[in-house]
Amino acid sequence: MSLKGRSILDAGIFTPDVFAELAERTTRLLDARPEPIFRDEVVAMLFYQPSTRTRMSFQLAAIRLGAQVIYTEDAGQFSSAAKGEILEDTTRIVAGYRPKALVLRHHDEDAPVVVDRNMQRLGFAMPVFNAGSGAGEHPTQAALDLYTIQRELGRTSDVEVAFVGDCRYSRTVRSLVTLLARCPGAKVHFVSVPELRVGADVRDTLDRAGVPYTETDDWEDLVPTVDILYMTRPQKEWFTDEAMFQTVKDRFVLDLPTARRMKPGARILHPLPRNEEIALAVDPLPQAAYFRQADYGPPLRTALFQMVCG
Amino acid sequence: MSLKGRSILDAGIFTPDVFAELAERTTRLLDARPEPIFRDEVVAMLFYQPSTRTRMSFQLAAIRLGAQVIYTEDAGQFSSAAKGEILEDTTRIVAGYRPKALVLRHHDEDAPVVVDRNMQRLGFAMPVFNAGSGAGEHPTQAALDLYTIQRELGRTSDVEVAFVGDCRYSRTVRSLVTLLARCPGAKVHFVSVPELRVGADVRDTLDRAGVPYTETDDWEDLVPTVDILYMTRPQKEWFTDEAMFQTVKDRFVLDLPTARRMKPGARILHPLPRNEEIALAVDPLPQAAYFRQADYGPPLRTALFQMVCG
Amino acid sequence: MSLKGRSILDAGIFTPDVFAELAERTTRLLDARPEPIFRDEVVAMLFYQPSTRTRMSFQLAAIRLGAQVIYTEDAGQFSSAAKGEILEDTTRIVAGYRPKALVLRHHDEDAPVVVDRNMQRLGFAMPVFNAGSGAGEHPTQAALDLYTIQRELGRTSDVEVAFVGDCRYSRTVRSLVTLLARCPGAKVHFVSVPELRVGADVRDTLDRAGVPYTETDDWEDLVPTVDILYMTRPQKEWFTDEAMFQTVKDRFVLDLPTARRMKPGARILHPLPRNEEIALAVDPLPQAAYFRQADYGPPLRTALFQMVCG
Repeated sequence: MSLKGRSILDAGIFTPDVFAELAERTTRLLDARPEPIFRDEVVAMLFYQPSTRTRMSFQLAAIRLGAQVIYTEDAGQFSSAAKGEILEDTTRIVAGYRPKALVLRHHDEDAPVVVDRNMQRLGFAMPVFNAGSGAGEHPTQAALDLYTIQRELGRTSDVEVAFVGDCRYSRTVRSLVTLLARCPGAKVHFVSVPELRVGADVRDTLDRAGVPYTETDDWEDLVPTVDILYMTRPQKEWFTDEAMFQTVKDRFVLDLPTARRMKPGARILHPLPRNEEIALAVDPLPQAAYFRQADYGPPLRTALFQMVCG
Repeated sequence: MSLKGRSILDAGIFTPDVFAELAERTTRLLDARPEPIFRDEVVAMLFYQPSTRTRMSFQLAAIRLGAQVIYTEDAGQFSSAAKGEILEDTTRIVAGYRPKALVLRHHDEDAPVVVDRNMQRLGFAMPVFNAGSGAGEHPTQAALDLYTIQRELGRTSDVEVAFVGDCRYSRTVRSLVTLLARCPGAKVHFVSVPELRVGADVRDTLDRAGVPYTETDDWEDLVPTVDILYMTRPQKEWFTDEAMFQTVKDRFVLDLPTARRMKPGARILHPLPRNEEIALAVDPLPQAAYFRQADYGPPLRTALFQMVCG
Repeated sequence: MSLKGRSILDAGIFTPDVFAELAERTTRLLDARPEPIFRDEVVAMLFYQPSTRTRMSFQLAAIRLGAQVIYTEDAGQFSSAAKGEILEDTTRIVAGYRPKALVLRHHDEDAPVVVDRNMQRLGFAMPVFNAGSGAGEHPTQAALDLYTIQRELGRTSDVEVAFVGDCRYSRTVRSLVTLLARCPGAKVHFVSVPELRVGADVRDTLDRAGVPYTETDDWEDLVPTVDILYMTRPQKEWFTDEAMFQTVKDRFVLDLPTARRMKPGARILHPLPRNEEIALAVDPLPQAAYFRQADYGPPLRTALFQMVCG
């Protein structure tokens, strides 16, 4: 399957062969500069949710390819009107400016799909890149996560992953699980308080793929055995009860003694930014891969632009 | 008359011969790329009022010409000080950075004129582009509107236009009327509630040009006869009375049955964004020209940069 | 001493020979374009405090060298977490994007030093440019100020400078004093209300250098004798008492009669923006050098980028 001209709406698009090509291109881009295939072109970025990391990462990928970026973060100012309507209007107008790609971050789970359908209906060829959609998907983060696993462990098969913290609202968990479900020999654990348990749809994905998984609120036995500790940050916005949030937030903190119990070859991932769920003292450990994970972001997104728009 | 080196402060600058050249250049740019006359140069954009569409449109025009854009949207943060003083300071400083053009959007009607005069007094050659000034002028929008009329109807003479909604505070109405007043055989209608009636200065413009116009709060008979329905969006900021705003806002809504009563060759324009004054169901009609109108924005502004700075 | 690869954390780095080279390069850049040594590269700007002038000035310097700018002004959104921790995380991530330089503006005095140390510890070669740190330092502004003095007076020795207004919290005062302390024959006066008197560290700098200085709340006798009146803007944020701020703010206003008492060859400097501490009527005087001072900003920062990153 080729990504050429296709929108990146959910992690499902990264089939094993697509991911293999993406990973190979990304690795080449770690040290080399790409051809400037976007020279004198623009990439449009509409962010209805603010973001520093994902924005900069996509922006850098576009710049490395020679593009200039048309960016708006205040897209949400029009939210007073019916959301779907205005999102369709804004993206229709941006499409008329003929950017090479539209990168969209939105608080609604279905926003990227709605926009993509609308573009197709109207005859615009502009591919849509989902840069995070509500509690739904974050496909480029998932591809980045799996790339990090491959690069750090040397493999994507027979990987045992524990997701820790917010398994319920974290879109990076959902998106990465989609990819893990296709990796031979994967095993998955969800470590969380009851309030942040993983959703039925994610469990279904694993069940259908025959991937074994467990749910627990005790990670003592998992820490020394898993290959990947995927830490996440419980977010205040999902809690109406402040006290509840404070409790949940501090339940799973990866401090130095805990991290030292991990296998030497195991790795810690985190989509960043972190709050206090990983202690600073952990950073120098070889297991701490979260900054390298961030480093791979721009080259991976550059590679993705190449495959979709090249 | 040549636009070379001149500021674009109000729609009056678009005399018939200037507009003819602008329109010709715009049409050429619909499919072709311009020479990068701004290569390694910058265009400064100072927006004291936020805007997504006008900003992106100007930004794209500058980028297509090879420029990078120095943009500030938080210009308004200095509004605590005496406005005129600080506006003069900020624009003087920006002028010292030697941009090829200054694009200014401001809540004061006379801001562009004040800045332009100050620049001339200080000996700076930097042209000022008014990208919307309070309830005053929006000259590039007016040129875009007239271009859309020409392109969609095939002519700018003998055009009958009904402005609908906010005839009072809409700067796009005032600016476009200036241009229509010079089009042979123009007829104008203002459709609004009494609170949003067109101002005396606009009526004067038409009177002096001998252009017939009517004012009404009933558009039933106009819908099937006019060539252009120019819809506008009543804006909450002008109403102290919330209930009043709600009533006014819903008074003239172009729904599908209404739109279907228009002549086949007639067109609907709107400066966008819309709220609910045009139903989504209207979009597929051939009369719905508002998105094409937006599409013409970047090439028209590119053409204008060429004429002023080329 | 060479600036190559070094961070610009405080004004102390501008030793006489470094400053001489910087000044010479800046003067050359007033009329000429630099080699685009940043072509296809990015410069990262993290602004935890908003700024229009300093931002645009650095941005323009980067653009003139061919760079694109990755900018974030909402860096402060993460301030809910432990500041030091998150600043280290954010800058570590940005460093991984391999920008040619990191320009940092932050409300903490020690932020640039903390970041620079962290970068060195982690093995990143990215130089850090302090674009203003709390009430601490603003080294590029100080270099700009001294360059303006040299260019306007024709010398940096035997210069008598009166700082007026906020001598306590103004980081530009502290940074410029560091440079003046190295200029032979310098004399310094601090004109302020008691609440805004200069700090002990600044007085120490002058004492150690053997530079004579006075402190006063009466500038009548100084106005006709000094070479440089360095006006500053008392900032509301430092006052808990609104009435106190209003009194202080209006205590030293340079109106036309006062400015006319200055020596013909003397000059008025101001880091801008001004509130009301310099009357508009003063602007046309030959002594009014504050806008030229701003004009020198982009070429000076371009020269600095050349020396550090070239």
